[in-house]
Amino acid sequence: MNFYKIEELDFKSPVSGIKMRLLHGQGMSMIFFTLDKDAPIPEHSHPHEQIGTVVSGAIRLSIGDQTEIVQPGQAYHVPPNVVHGGVSLKPDTKIIEAFSPCRNDLK
Amino acid sequence: MNFYKIEELDFKSPVSGIKMRLLHGQGMSMIFFTLDKDAPIPEHSHPHEQIGTVVSGAIRLSIGDQTEIVQPGQAYHVPPNVVHGGVSLKPDTKIIEAFSPCRNDLK
Repeated sequence: MNFYKIEELDFKSPVSGIKMRLLHGQGMSMIFFTLDKDAPIPEHSHPHEQIGTVVSGAIRLSIGDQTEIVQPGQAYHVPPNVVHGGVSLKPDTKIIEAFSPCRNDLK
Repeated sequence: MNFYKIEELDFKSPVSGIKMRLLHGQGMSMIFFTLDKDAPIPEHSHPHEQIGTVVSGAIRLSIGDQTEIVQPGQAYHVPPNVVHGGVSLKPDTKIIEAFSPCRNDLK
């Protein structure tokens, strides 16, 4: 199957206030996030490279030693193993992130 | 630099009515598409795996022998080397697609 409804994808809530729907390919994943206002994105890192964008709402995001507020119209890149984290600044913030390789750790 | 404004990313228009903004990482790319109504997505394939989603508007998309109308809330996966193509069904349709490995052919 090549077509999916996001609301029917695998669901996880890694921390309170953050919901994920996960679409895994062979060598990559896309994750659709919904964040409550003030939901913390704990600092973490992983060997997967990551590119993301904010579809609605806003987050304050730190990637390594850089921190910015990311809103719709903006995107970000997290190189492998670089620590990143932040906080959701608005209710019902929606983020789309892609990862390479596949996030088998989240299956 | 890890943060980007999408409107400042590299720009390409692969066919009439389709505009792309490209964000390349090391082993992956994310492309932000804007499609006019009726813009054709010519049938094509590439060795890169692809996951995409429609943010606004709609497309009719064929992936291999499957065809569906894809709208916000839906996503799709294109395995490597599988032929895909379609057409934009609404004005100002916005799509986000991620690719692995990096789309060096679009640099």
